[in-house]
Amino acid sequence: MCELLALSSSQPLRLTFSLQALAARGGPAGRSHDGWGVAFYQGSDVALFREPVAAANSNLVRHLESHGPATRLAISHIRHATQGEVSLANTQPFVRELGGRTHVFAHNGDLPAISGRKSLSLGDYRPVGQTDSEHAFCALLGRMASLWRGDGPPRLQCRLTVLATFAAELRALGPANFLYADGDALFAHGHRRLQLNGRAEPPGLWIRQRRCPANGELADRGAGVAVKAESTTAVWIASVPLTEDEWRPMSCGELAAVRDGEIIGNLPGSST
Amino acid sequence: MCELLALSSSQPLRLTFSLQALAARGGPAGRSHDGWGVAFYQGSDVALFREPVAAANSNLVRHLESHGPATRLAISHIRHATQGEVSLANTQPFVRELGGRTHVFAHNGDLPAISGRKSLSLGDYRPVGQTDSEHAFCALLGRMASLWRGDGPPRLQCRLTVLATFAAELRALGPANFLYADGDALFAHGHRRLQLNGRAEPPGLWIRQRRCPANGELADRGAGVAVKAESTTAVWIASVPLTEDEWRPMSCGELAAVRDGEIIGNLPGSST
Repeated sequence: MCELLALSSSQPLRLTFSLQALAARGGPAGRSHDGWGVAFYQGSDVALFREPVAAANSNLVRHLESHGPATRLAISHIRHATQGEVSLANTQPFVRELGGRTHVFAHNGDLPAISGRKSLSLGDYRPVGQTDSEHAFCALLGRMASLWRGDGPPRLQCRLTVLATFAAELRALGPANFLYADGDALFAHGHRRLQLNGRAEPPGLWIRQRRCPANGELADRGAGVAVKAESTTAVWIASVPLTEDEWRPMSCGELAAVRDGEIIGNLPGSST
Repeated sequence: MCELLALSSSQPLRLTFSLQALAARGGPAGRSHDGWGVAFYQGSDVALFREPVAAANSNLVRHLESHGPATRLAISHIRHATQGEVSLANTQPFVRELGGRTHVFAHNGDLPAISGRKSLSLGDYRPVGQTDSEHAFCALLGRMASLWRGDGPPRLQCRLTVLATFAAELRALGPANFLYADGDALFAHGHRRLQLNGRAEPPGLWIRQRRCPANGELADRGAGVAVKAESTTAVWIASVPLTEDEWRPMSCGELAAVRDGEIIGNLPGSST
């Protein structure tokens, strides 16, 4: 299974987490070795790092662990290939520009029938690779495009409405855990995932919020964030809990919106 | 002045050139310190590295010098800011997807009136940053979009025709040296550039082709390419000659198309 991780915070943080550790926590050792990627927002644009190799073997991962950029929003993905060859074009996260902002998408799951689903057909955005995940992203942006004609971000509720419908259609096709950011907010959709008991069931994502007082010690090395002196609020979302504390499983179909370390919107899950 | 560099080759090469050296060669020391970027094609997609800091101070540049990916097409840019703040979004090269391929653009020059030029107005592509260069890229893709509706790349001649018209319009606005790649071919447009005599005049780009026999030594360390045993043909295009030999100045308005180290199309320059 692939692994997803997102961090949203009120202050720019230098994410020093180990991608290898993330991959190792998520499943049997060595299964998620087909690529890795991480997108760091800087304003409306993104510094994107991806490689179609195992994170454990990557010099670039080691570089980022010590020198990655500070950010208030990062999305990371570790790939276990289910569709599409092992190549850069099939390595997540995927990015596209819409409305003058760089949008980022990462998916964990399997949507084998998506290319035949008429309501999820492609518009102006075309996949560069062959994955179901990138097809889903292109279809999502096609639906979002009309909202982004103005100067600023569309109303949050409008975006959540589009996402809820989109996510429900994905769930009908297969496991559809995803992270999506549009340069304004982060959206996370939890579904189901292959668990240690061998069954594909919820939770597909876990969420954790942490508030750290000014001048307090952000003793949060377990989640791999550099210690900060400022008052900081942060939200983590991941495929599996990365620390022992405070993680809440997202329900099946739950959709959360996050900005600057605060949960600003939430649509409850459904039974499907 | 900004600095441009492109390499197209018949075999994947590991580009070990020093970005610092490129910046230092191009102009007075310390002027091009506002950012750097390099795009490495891998199939139809691109590994893009950019930072809004001086290349000389960058740990990422040092990482890429020793561990950058092998590629048959790379485009690099060193920024001296003329329009737009120093930020990631204003750091070239810029990338967008069109027709299921990642397109790359880098510009050296100054086009202050581009946003008021109706024929170069934006279509579906919107700039993420504030530069004239990204505006030009978005306008170019808007013109190219109708050509890319089919499955494969459009006819080369059609693309050259669009580019020639586009480049002529840019030249009317200011210095317009640019590199553009569409996942199939590399295009280079030479115009004029601030020379050591203090005047903005041609050449704005230089071009060099080199053929290296099988099992011969590619003694090309001056251009910073790793030694290869295979027979290799390569084309370099740069703001200034990077070695002592074989560089030809591109004429004012000349447009060259390059694929796999071969020049596959050329439109001569004009007097403007």
